Amino acid sequence: MIYIVSTGPGNSDSMSVEAINAIKECDVIVGYGKYIELIEPLIQDKMVFTTGMTKEVDRCRQALEISLTGKKVAMVSGGDAGVYGMGGIMQEIVLEMAPEIEVVVIPGITAANAAAAALGAPIVHDSVNISLSDLLTDIEVIKKRLHAAGTGDFITCIYNPKSKGRPHYIEMARDILLEYKKSETPVGIVKNARRDDQEVFITTLEKMCDVDIDMSTIVIVGNSDTFVKNGKMITPRGYRR
Amino acid sequence: MIYIVSTGPGNSDSMSVEAINAIKECDVIVGYGKYIELIEPLIQDKMVFTTGMTKEVDRCRQALEISLTGKKVAMVSGGDAGVYGMGGIMQEIVLEMAPEIEVVVIPGITAANAAAAALGAPIVHDSVNISLSDLLTDIEVIKKRLHAAGTGDFITCIYNPKSKGRPHYIEMARDILLEYKKSETPVGIVKNARRDDQEVFITTLEKMCDVDIDMSTIVIVGNSDTFVKNGKMITPRGYRR
Repeated sequence: MIYIVSTGPGNSDSMSVEAINAIKECDVIVGYGKYIELIEPLIQDKMVFTTGMTKEVDRCRQALEISLTGKKVAMVSGGDAGVYGMGGIMQEIVLEMAPEIEVVVIPGITAANAAAAALGAPIVHDSVNISLSDLLTDIEVIKKRLHAAGTGDFITCIYNPKSKGRPHYIEMARDILLEYKKSETPVGIVKNARRDDQEVFITTLEKMCDVDIDMSTIVIVGNSDTFVKNGKMITPRGYRR
Repeated sequence: MIYIVSTGPGNSDSMSVEAINAIKECDVIVGYGKYIELIEPLIQDKMVFTTGMTKEVDRCRQALEISLTGKKVAMVSGGDAGVYGMGGIMQEIVLEMAPEIEVVVIPGITAANAAAAALGAPIVHDSVNISLSDLLTDIEVIKKRLHAAGTGDFITCIYNPKSKGRPHYIEMARDILLEYKKSETPVGIVKNARRDDQEVFITTLEKMCDVDIDMSTIVIVGNSDTFVKNGKMITPRGYRR
């Protein structure tokens, strides 16, 4: 039995009751070190296996091997395991190697939803999630999706906006969105959403790259209705039209 | 003081610990009857005000009036209050009428994330959320966004797919997406995600309208990589390329 447990954006207080119960029920916890650390108080009496950030496939094989010994295993994943998380690859490997093993996915609060709550209410209306990481996705596909986000006037949540290997993709994203959106379109930037070191910035599409953006940052670009008032970034849904 | 509390997709077990603590801290709960019912055990000792589904502005004014008497008020909203929920309008009204009132937003698990967990892992990669409700959005904007979802090869989560007033919009959405996606593209349909009466269907873009879809249904249309195996709908992120 494998639980894929979403641990939410912050510490264990941002997890659902169901997710906490699933962790409690398991004998062994497998996951990336940083997420394990955030929920430490919850797993003190458990066997824990951690692996590095780019070892996703190894981590899943390990979880599967342990579950084949009859133990209940929780594969933990930050935010929602089903959004740029371990939910997919874990299930792919089980389906391929041991389809008889039962897998249960426990959803969680995403980084974008946590960032939005810190900013006000920027993604109340139609939105897209786009990751700028080209480790797993061709850069041409990423560009195509940024253009589509622009033509659709979607609120645009950008995951993995910047890393050492690709410091300029966020500028590329800005430039593509500027083809469709006004330069003064509100942009909310949240680092370490819902963690103790959370930082929140509200700026504009034109100036967004002046903020120090890293891999733990979510960038939310508004649609043509989004406004900023009293330090809150809000996209009206239209209730008062 | 007003908390905007996301109550998640199901009962109070799908809420975060923070959301539960916020409810406990409040004197008065305001919300739509159905969401209040789902978290009933949590609010037995509270004053509760419920309003009907289309009374969003009245509900926010009521919450604000109560908070102005010095009470702590929780405006509850199903799923994530910041995704097609009460998070925006509540803050708009506070900013307009009493900007001195502090508002805190507690994020939650969305209906789409809950539906995805029930299906497997369909939205692991870039995705859009689109609501088909034209109560608050012009139908031409909805169409434009469906086309953009198609050109971007996004996984497409459809909220509010059908109501009595607009039974055919879901067919329109299917037809627009068929201009860009193959007819055999996997589609996951989840009714009442994470509630006791949850129902899960996996079908194709061509046949999706054969399933009985209503307002409590989330429809998730895959991208060009999405596959179905052993009853699980999965979009690979590409870890093994």
